[in-house]
Amino acid sequence: MTTLVFGHKSPDTDSTGAPIVWAWYLSDVRQTPAQPVLLGTPNTEAAYMLQRWGFEQPRILDTLEPDQKVVIVDTNNPAELPENINEADITGIIDHHLLVGGLKTRGPIEITVRPLACTVTVMHQMMGDDARKMPDAIKGVMLSCILSDTLAFRSPTTTQADRDLAESLATDLGVEIPALADELLAAKSDVSAFSDADLLRMDSKEYTVEGVKFRVSVLETTSPASILSRKASLMETMVGVAGEDKVNQVLLFIVDILNEEATLLVPNDLVKDLAQKSFGVEVDSDSVVLPGVMSRKKQIIPNLKL
Amino acid sequence: MTTLVFGHKSPDTDSTGAPIVWAWYLSDVRQTPAQPVLLGTPNTEAAYMLQRWGFEQPRILDTLEPDQKVVIVDTNNPAELPENINEADITGIIDHHLLVGGLKTRGPIEITVRPLACTVTVMHQMMGDDARKMPDAIKGVMLSCILSDTLAFRSPTTTQADRDLAESLATDLGVEIPALADELLAAKSDVSAFSDADLLRMDSKEYTVEGVKFRVSVLETTSPASILSRKASLMETMVGVAGEDKVNQVLLFIVDILNEEATLLVPNDLVKDLAQKSFGVEVDSDSVVLPGVMSRKKQIIPNLKL
Repeated sequence: MTTLVFGHKSPDTDSTGAPIVWAWYLSDVRQTPAQPVLLGTPNTEAAYMLQRWGFEQPRILDTLEPDQKVVIVDTNNPAELPENINEADITGIIDHHLLVGGLKTRGPIEITVRPLACTVTVMHQMMGDDARKMPDAIKGVMLSCILSDTLAFRSPTTTQADRDLAESLATDLGVEIPALADELLAAKSDVSAFSDADLLRMDSKEYTVEGVKFRVSVLETTSPASILSRKASLMETMVGVAGEDKVNQVLLFIVDILNEEATLLVPNDLVKDLAQKSFGVEVDSDSVVLPGVMSRKKQIIPNLKL
Repeated sequence: MTTLVFGHKSPDTDSTGAPIVWAWYLSDVRQTPAQPVLLGTPNTEAAYMLQRWGFEQPRILDTLEPDQKVVIVDTNNPAELPENINEADITGIIDHHLLVGGLKTRGPIEITVRPLACTVTVMHQMMGDDARKMPDAIKGVMLSCILSDTLAFRSPTTTQADRDLAESLATDLGVEIPALADELLAAKSDVSAFSDADLLRMDSKEYTVEGVKFRVSVLETTSPASILSRKASLMETMVGVAGEDKVNQVLLFIVDILNEEATLLVPNDLVKDLAQKSFGVEVDSDSVVLPGVMSRKKQIIPNLKL
């Protein structure tokens, strides 16, 4: 049986690229037939990465068959995975997020979580010497994932291991890191084709604070003005999206990559209170700037309070 | 803050030895102060291992303070850990069991689970070249853990990695594997000092089948007759132990290491039905022999049905 390798819903560059990297490794090195799939349409940056390195878009998984062999990458959160994930035969988990609990396996399997910025950096460590066998296209995907997840080394999640690997891959490929990073950021920032609801769901994770369910959405961009110009309609659309997605509130953080700050939209008193308690800021309008905030994982989620 | 390293309640040899190995590695190699502790009195084999390699018995953890830094080894099951485990600051998990879900971490941490027979084999792989720095006493603990968990390579959980490591450690130490294995098994089989309740809890894991909670207890022994001679009082004691430990039923599997079979005590129709459905045997007395069954993880737990 072919093993399906996938990341989380609303696939970003890492959740699109890491399955491609690991399916290559399983198939070509470990001789275990494997196929990357996606749990949704990749975002514009991920789509650019695929095209840049000559990959077709992996198939979007429709239904997960019970007993299907799967490897889960870039998440361990059942809420970000198919509803029946625990009916699948999970044979591996590779991740770099906090453990939320909830996934179960049928037997002892290979689970590797490391506090690194990017899933592919974890994979590279797992490959050991076999990493040398990677074809250029796989190296290119790996490099793109690291530049994406670290915001070209600007994010506080960046570790020396991520940086060293990216630099060595860039040297191997003869690629200039700043140039590739700019291409990826430009692709990520081009959100003109997306509806407000698309933007609110594009890079989003559910998180519960004292019983209140949030969709914590982040948009990383080099052009925050183009998103902020849609502020009113984004805040209107939040209500419907929250209802459809069965959460109490959508939080939208617009991360300005170049200025290294985030703007949080503040549509109501719930978000106002949360912003003040969580980030120690005074809120007096329908948005608030959070200087230095770039990482949902390191700076947003751990601070959320009500 | 010193990191506490511990395994599961009712510590066997692996759950006593693996914390010693990892606390050594954290302290001496990674320069992170760490201390091994136990979640209960070690069994006779574990006690023998400590004495054989010159270790004092690690402190038994009384209460786990909130925010205490901990590394969990040889389990990922909250039921086998202090009740307030999710209030601790879990900084690492190293295990070789199926993922049951339930543990949560505060941030991305190092989690390594591998389908190997023994936790210390996973640790050895994680150490890489630093494993060469292990003093003899640590090597001796490592070797003892592998011989214990693999029943000297008899258990079907044994992998080539466990066997290769054990053989290389034995060569380094100038120890004969069969001799050390015999000493460990003799220590494990000497249960005369234990009460019936002790025996039922000595090597025991909770497991739920269709809403019915079991304590799945295993006694590995080279002398099954000495345990079977206590069958009547063991079955009587099960009722009280189940009540105190808030499970519906205790299952006691007496694993005959030399003859490679297990005897399950059958005190009532619930266990009779379970034995027949789970192992395809006909039960017509108060015990049943299960040929070839030696591993709770590979042969007992995955087959339990009601």
